[in-house]
Amino acid sequence: MDTPILNSLTVQKVGGAVVENAESLAQLIRDFAAIPGPKVLVHGGGRSATALATRLGLETQMVEGRRITDDDMLKVVTMVYGGLVNKNIVAQLQAAGINALGLTGADMDVIRSHRRPLKNGIDYGWVGDVDRADGQRLALLISEGVVPVIAPLTHDGQGHMLNTNADTMAQTVACALAPYYKVSLRYAFEKRGVMRDPDDSSTLIPHITEADFHQLCAEGIIQGGMIPKVENALQAIRQGVCEVLIGETRIS
Amino acid sequence: MDTPILNSLTVQKVGGAVVENAESLAQLIRDFAAIPGPKVLVHGGGRSATALATRLGLETQMVEGRRITDDDMLKVVTMVYGGLVNKNIVAQLQAAGINALGLTGADMDVIRSHRRPLKNGIDYGWVGDVDRADGQRLALLISEGVVPVIAPLTHDGQGHMLNTNADTMAQTVACALAPYYKVSLRYAFEKRGVMRDPDDSSTLIPHITEADFHQLCAEGIIQGGMIPKVENALQAIRQGVCEVLIGETRIS
Repeated sequence: MDTPILNSLTVQKVGGAVVENAESLAQLIRDFAAIPGPKVLVHGGGRSATALATRLGLETQMVEGRRITDDDMLKVVTMVYGGLVNKNIVAQLQAAGINALGLTGADMDVIRSHRRPLKNGIDYGWVGDVDRADGQRLALLISEGVVPVIAPLTHDGQGHMLNTNADTMAQTVACALAPYYKVSLRYAFEKRGVMRDPDDSSTLIPHITEADFHQLCAEGIIQGGMIPKVENALQAIRQGVCEVLIGETRIS
Repeated sequence: MDTPILNSLTVQKVGGAVVENAESLAQLIRDFAAIPGPKVLVHGGGRSATALATRLGLETQMVEGRRITDDDMLKVVTMVYGGLVNKNIVAQLQAAGINALGLTGADMDVIRSHRRPLKNGIDYGWVGDVDRADGQRLALLISEGVVPVIAPLTHDGQGHMLNTNADTMAQTVACALAPYYKVSLRYAFEKRGVMRDPDDSSTLIPHITEADFHQLCAEGIIQGGMIPKVENALQAIRQGVCEVLIGETRIS
């Protein structure tokens, strides 16, 4: 049996800092619009959520980089991620000739998750750990020329929205699309990539395999917040994604 | 040539009051889920927008029932309509087994509008008057089993979101779908319908034609906010919608 020849597709993850500043957002729109072929954008928005929460007198509590999401904070992130940030990106991509469609995991049930159980006694509130993405549905949309723009929100199938990590969502979407496309997953990042010395961009590590990762962790070179990022990347490779790039904010 | 036999489709408009209260929203979800056949929901959300604006120290100014939408107010309505209200409805419809997809006009460019020019010297700000809805795109989604849930926001094709009247959006969507479906457009309303005496539901006028409308306006029976509502309805009929119902909040 012949192996089908798959087209290339890019899943681009951008953090909140990029999409929340008018100038860097305009640059993102230009860069993302210029990526050839089918593509998906996954965005964050944490700084805007924190800013709105503060204006509303709500305290933002982060535990290991994750936002504690009580009832009020869920409203804030649903408004900011699903409304303000997502629709602003969609409108600007439309103006750039890209047929963008803003999605949360709840829309067409594309990404389902479950509320995170207590972890070390910590109740994260309405935070979702992803169960699955509907690659078939996303691939169908993409085949019709649509460019999904995905906010870091999912749902539990029981009527609740859930605040969900955008890196994980990008990885899940990339894996779900791997049967339909040769997927390149790209994490835009404030640094050039993973570096031996985080303050010296000349020490960039150009390529990391699974074996390298364990070695680099043992040496203490990959540490802290980079560990889940690289773990996510390697998991994507194991699940059929062709390549994962972790690099600078400029995405093309 | 045979006339094609079209399937029936319901476009249901619900106001903000229904979707902003947990109990009436739950009822709406049940009622809407029970409507047989393909369907579209168009919702408001004005009260929540006003409530959020107040909490943020922004004053809400209404002129002839329309919200003056400056930069800050546009952020508020984008958050509330496109995020909070829309995603809450979508998640709850998903839980009820309806494959809902939240949309603004910007998403897949389904509804395009232009910023309202000065009217009698009044600058409405980022308010959009609808130019067109993409019935073909919506019909394609609907044929795939998707139920669009449309927030009262559009875009101008130049990167700006625009605050848009939900009644008008429902009418535009109904007309755009008329070539593909036998469309029934339903406006949920706090009263039983158009009444000779607004305080006496026994005076309900069961059926209004174009000729009736002019007569009823001349008699002063249809007045104020009911005039644009009924005008919208008659325009929908002229553009191929099969029937328009204006009736109580309970939608089935």
